[in-house]
Amino acid sequence: MNRKAPLAVALMHYPTRDRLGKLVATNITNFDIHDIARACRVYGIDRYYLVHPLKEQLMFVERVLDHWAVGEGSKFNPMRKTALRDVKTAETLEKGMADWGYPEARIIATHARVLPGKESYTFKSFKTALETEDNPYVLIFGTGFGLTPEFMEGCYGVLEPIKGSSKDDYRHLSVRSAVSICLDRLLGS
Amino acid sequence: MNRKAPLAVALMHYPTRDRLGKLVATNITNFDIHDIARACRVYGIDRYYLVHPLKEQLMFVERVLDHWAVGEGSKFNPMRKTALRDVKTAETLEKGMADWGYPEARIIATHARVLPGKESYTFKSFKTALETEDNPYVLIFGTGFGLTPEFMEGCYGVLEPIKGSSKDDYRHLSVRSAVSICLDRLLGS
Repeated sequence: MNRKAPLAVALMHYPTRDRLGKLVATNITNFDIHDIARACRVYGIDRYYLVHPLKEQLMFVERVLDHWAVGEGSKFNPMRKTALRDVKTAETLEKGMADWGYPEARIIATHARVLPGKESYTFKSFKTALETEDNPYVLIFGTGFGLTPEFMEGCYGVLEPIKGSSKDDYRHLSVRSAVSICLDRLLGS
Repeated sequence: MNRKAPLAVALMHYPTRDRLGKLVATNITNFDIHDIARACRVYGIDRYYLVHPLKEQLMFVERVLDHWAVGEGSKFNPMRKTALRDVKTAETLEKGMADWGYPEARIIATHARVLPGKESYTFKSFKTALETEDNPYVLIFGTGFGLTPEFMEGCYGVLEPIKGSSKDDYRHLSVRSAVSICLDRLLGS
């Protein structure tokens, strides 16, 4: 596809809820860095932001990125170096968007279920927007048991949920799978 | 989609090659168990086999499965229990197919690049096969730097590669992403 709109992906570790509904900041995992960076790279995403309010967590990410960019990892597996090229960290989504150069980017949230009362993009309509508009977009994914409803309500739009084909409509994809499938549906050939 | 053909997924840790092309058995990672099990569950796959020649590696998987099926994990996160319901281990692909009850299942391999000389399914033609045929199929994914060419040649067919949309045709998806995208293309709505 020929994407016209600038597009970034952000993985949000706050404001998220835990399994009991409590507001928490989730931990960043190593697989969240690598798997999502590689998927973003395959689909030509401009930037991938790992968003976390704690400096210690972002420093962990920076150490991993450094290992593969200039450390031992860059010699061991050069393909990984290029995968991590566009990965960035940010304390908040707003700071990430400012760093990207598009502080006005439209925030599109993702969710496993349809959110009532919220304007929704289908994969098809968002694909069309990406192909025809100049507006920058940032596609965000929650961790833990999802972003808070307050945060979701502040987003520009919500992308339709991924519905699979299990008999009981099971929808608990890992965030790594969800990102991969969304990017393929929006940008795959 | 209405799938007619029985379908299993197998993650192969042997016979695989390392980055230097040497024949190795790769390690099973915890994320390979969970992420792929969840994707298989969302798309209604009949069985997910983790294939490894070493008993110690399969015992690691069994301990993880046990933790979520009857151990502490089953109380902590019941949704994970149901995700892991159809996950099995096998020392070889043949033993997995026999355990599944379909020793004659057609083996369909996946690869990041087109394999010359090998009959190839497109996503569309394999989707049609799954919707119209009674033949059982097992869709296999390699780890490390891919399955050996000898093993690939023995498969019934090969599924077309996932081509993304990066300017330099970068295709190094994690196996977790590759499984997710393949299942969505074949079985997604």
